[in-house]
Amino acid sequence: MNIQTCLSPALFNLYPHQGKTVVIIDILRATSAICSAFEHGINKIIPVMTIEEAEAMQAKGYLAGGERDGVKLPQFDYGNSPYDFMTENTVGKDLVLTTTNGTKACKMAEGAANVVIGSFINMAAVAKYVSGLDNDVILFCSGWKDKFNIEDTLFAGALAEALMLQYRATTDCDSTQAAKYLYNEANSNIIQFIEKSSHRIRLRKLELERDINYCFMLNQSQTIPVLVNGEIIKLQNN
Amino acid sequence: MNIQTCLSPALFNLYPHQGKTVVIIDILRATSAICSAFEHGINKIIPVMTIEEAEAMQAKGYLAGGERDGVKLPQFDYGNSPYDFMTENTVGKDLVLTTTNGTKACKMAEGAANVVIGSFINMAAVAKYVSGLDNDVILFCSGWKDKFNIEDTLFAGALAEALMLQYRATTDCDSTQAAKYLYNEANSNIIQFIEKSSHRIRLRKLELERDINYCFMLNQSQTIPVLVNGEIIKLQNN
Repeated sequence: MNIQTCLSPALFNLYPHQGKTVVIIDILRATSAICSAFEHGINKIIPVMTIEEAEAMQAKGYLAGGERDGVKLPQFDYGNSPYDFMTENTVGKDLVLTTTNGTKACKMAEGAANVVIGSFINMAAVAKYVSGLDNDVILFCSGWKDKFNIEDTLFAGALAEALMLQYRATTDCDSTQAAKYLYNEANSNIIQFIEKSSHRIRLRKLELERDINYCFMLNQSQTIPVLVNGEIIKLQNN
Repeated sequence: MNIQTCLSPALFNLYPHQGKTVVIIDILRATSAICSAFEHGINKIIPVMTIEEAEAMQAKGYLAGGERDGVKLPQFDYGNSPYDFMTENTVGKDLVLTTTNGTKACKMAEGAANVVIGSFINMAAVAKYVSGLDNDVILFCSGWKDKFNIEDTLFAGALAEALMLQYRATTDCDSTQAAKYLYNEANSNIIQFIEKSSHRIRLRKLELERDINYCFMLNQSQTIPVLVNGEIIKLQNN
């Protein structure tokens, strides 16, 4: 099981994903919010690229979540705060979701053997599941508008470390090595490490400190969201 | 003076370069070899994208250097080993050069206010020169076939650190922060740090240990190669 890390959607075409497991990573906040939503009982999430697609499905009766540049779009029911989905209103419901970076990565990963939603919240469960699939793995960082970001890279490093230490995965990929080094440097206090990161500053301006703290809490959930036929569902029997 | 770090040519369009200083980075080995060539008396280097362009200029009388995948092309006089240019045969001569990654980055950076060739060999001189220009800076890692590589990122981190500590530069860029962290982690023994890197393994297979050691030697040269009108020349009066 070989691991590669793709640091930006703009580089994803360099990593052929057919036959592989792709882990989608958008720590602040799409994949953390998706994990929160399934942990709190949502039935299904449809990721879409555009606001228009989300509006059209909302008109058909779906709950709708939408965010651009960290801000909830006013016409939708939810943004992409993990706290938005800690409510009984979403239990058993279907949600359409469009975000700045994460839902785009979901669409790009279609065609992989398996597509898994990863976050610090469900990291140990994801590591165990991915290792059982025994395919090569692409850790796909959603980044920020195609640029590298530090929080997705830290998670890639953390997951790579877990897969290599606990499950004998290997890597010959410089970005995976770099992500691991960064994670090991940051590990003792990740929140402090990302203090200067561009997206943390952006969210702090929006007063989302609570979200940031949640998104870096490790292994709060055993739930594994997977993308199947364009829809994110909860993996059963894990 | 704000610093941004572009980790791959495939991301360079995200960093508008008009009015800025671009530092071209291809540590193993193009920018290290270019610095070596000027340190040892070459007059001018014309970077070209294709083998055909280099062959055409060679036919017109230029010396020619060419490499693909780390291997010297047989029809050319030189590869891109820094040691290739430590010879009296190149003193005062003009060279056309095509390499896997570095010469492509040179072409892409055309249009910037200033384009500077950076390597560990001439790092302190580059830091001083760039700080004097007082424009915003893009540290442009050539990478490996559009993928992230560790050695270019380490140099970006080293130069960013020097510009920020000694010349009061700032950054709001996650890739610059990450590069700095990696450099500070690697600083005490860079060769050991890159032991597992993909390009080091590639070059080791080609028995280029001597080149690797040279390319990480700090501040061996005060020479600053700059790209002007498509030609790399030695900056005068620095």
